[in-house]
Amino acid sequence: MISKQTHLAEHRIHLRVRYSETDQMGTFYNSRALEWFECGRTELLRAAGVPYAEMEARGVLLPLIEAHVEYFGRARYDDLLEMTTRAAFCGKARLRFDVEIVHAPSEQSRADCAPAARRIARGYTVHAISDAAGKPIRPPDWLLTALPQEGRA
Amino acid sequence: MISKQTHLAEHRIHLRVRYSETDQMGTFYNSRALEWFECGRTELLRAAGVPYAEMEARGVLLPLIEAHVEYFGRARYDDLLEMTTRAAFCGKARLRFDVEIVHAPSEQSRADCAPAARRIARGYTVHAISDAAGKPIRPPDWLLTALPQEGRA
Amino acid sequence: MISKQTHLAEHRIHLRVRYSETDQMGTFYNSRALEWFECGRTELLRAAGVPYAEMEARGVLLPLIEAHVEYFGRARYDDLLEMTTRAAFCGKARLRFDVEIVHAPSEQSRADCAPAARRIARGYTVHAISDAAGKPIRPPDWLLTALPQEGRA
Amino acid sequence: MISKQTHLAEHRIHLRVRYSETDQMGTFYNSRALEWFECGRTELLRAAGVPYAEMEARGVLLPLIEAHVEYFGRARYDDLLEMTTRAAFCGKARLRFDVEIVHAPSEQSRADCAPAARRIARGYTVHAISDAAGKPIRPPDWLLTALPQEGRA
Repeated sequence: MISKQTHLAEHRIHLRVRYSETDQMGTFYNSRALEWFECGRTELLRAAGVPYAEMEARGVLLPLIEAHVEYFGRARYDDLLEMTTRAAFCGKARLRFDVEIVHAPSEQSRADCAPAARRIARGYTVHAISDAAGKPIRPPDWLLTALPQEGRA
Repeated sequence: MISKQTHLAEHRIHLRVRYSETDQMGTFYNSRALEWFECGRTELLRAAGVPYAEMEARGVLLPLIEAHVEYFGRARYDDLLEMTTRAAFCGKARLRFDVEIVHAPSEQSRADCAPAARRIARGYTVHAISDAAGKPIRPPDWLLTALPQEGRA
Repeated sequence: MISKQTHLAEHRIHLRVRYSETDQMGTFYNSRALEWFECGRTELLRAAGVPYAEMEARGVLLPLIEAHVEYFGRARYDDLLEMTTRAAFCGKARLRFDVEIVHAPSEQSRADCAPAARRIARGYTVHAISDAAGKPIRPPDWLLTALPQEGRA
Repeated sequence: MISKQTHLAEHRIHLRVRYSETDQMGTFYNSRALEWFECGRTELLRAAGVPYAEMEARGVLLPLIEAHVEYFGRARYDDLLEMTTRAAFCGKARLRFDVEIVHAPSEQSRADCAPAARRIARGYTVHAISDAAGKPIRPPDWLLTALPQEGRA
């Protein structure tokens, strides 16, 4: 049986570009995408019942080991963004989040079209799953339960 | 008649501390307060019907000329903050925003007490009112109307 | 005898505006000033023989309790800045850093004039002196020795 | 003939981790790597005689279209980092920068070993080459000359 790894743990949030996140090119500075990705992970984990602040308090950390971003379009100060985050386990002790950021549909006329035309950025982050001492661990059962994956049963 | 300068234009928002905003002391890094102040101004102006992005498009800018912050307490990753912003004109071409940041009441037991006990930071920013070329201007009527001040009539 | 509180512990550094520090107005975003102030403190303390990383390791912390910035002029991406930091004890358990940021003289023709004409920002930060648990302490002798103050003998 | 694409345009800089760049895990926050990559590009281009600020003034922009980072080790506040940046043209209108960040050898005993043992992060950014209107252009001759590539002659 083929594991299709479609992500069942998916979450969508909206956020606005802060003035502090723009640069002199008039769009968001590139590294802000990684900060937004973090907001997406935080809210996905909260929605899944495992807030990351509680995970850290339980001694389960998700240190970042890889990040990738592709940039497609501009986003200006105060633009409303729609960010979709999907979580998937990969390997024995890895958690991967895939993220897409588009202009929110209601925002402006140019955004009232297909997501492809509203694209801002896309990317992923890969995280180790470790204990408080930094030692890799297998995902605890409560984390596996909280983030169900298709094709795993 | 004494102008009491109580701020009628007041607005309250909530925001969560991002992981990217913490530092190795385990609280938010000090400069983040100024970034949060900006979020407060942005939402106050939107609520008042004069979104700052539209003001800039109209050629009315609010460059920052002074900022002050006092720090009272810690705020950790994912803490929910309540920020109150008040706007007041001062002098002929100045707009001042006063800001208070406290732990949101519902957040955690220690926060279910008086605002004074939940205090995180307090401060203000003073802005020139200028045209697109940077020349100081008097506040336009639509801005004065949008941000009513007590004791002015 | 009058304590003149002229700051004998003074240090000057240069730094360049990063692209990430600009905003869509084409100058540095306001909160970056506080990040640069931190660079100035770090290098002043290193030059004085008490690197802050070592102070933290010894259990002496300098949590920020107040910050103030005045903004005078623009600074663009890649501009070379000259920042002067001065340290002074104030009260029983307070350390204050005063900072001035100007365009470096060699940078560009407009900058080859008096510092007043090259001004970018000025401000200060006030720090508690505390132990690792956050309890205020008097400045240790090694810190008083490292940061001599005029008019104190 | 095989174009080996070894990067002849290579540049090395040192930088210190700012307190503002740390997070509550005690290492640098992940997005800072992209801000440091930018410092590496800026100094490589300056060393090559084509400062990016001048390129922008000439109407040649390098908007980021892709970024990738792998994280290997921690770096704390005030750690001295050594960053090596290499530039290579790829495709018709693309410039790619490869970056490696390690602990500077002189920094501390643990760092006095092979670069592999001192590794902090590695990654790359891919940039379009565009005119001021955002239209892709072929690299101008002065840029090709400034960034020589092996195996091209």
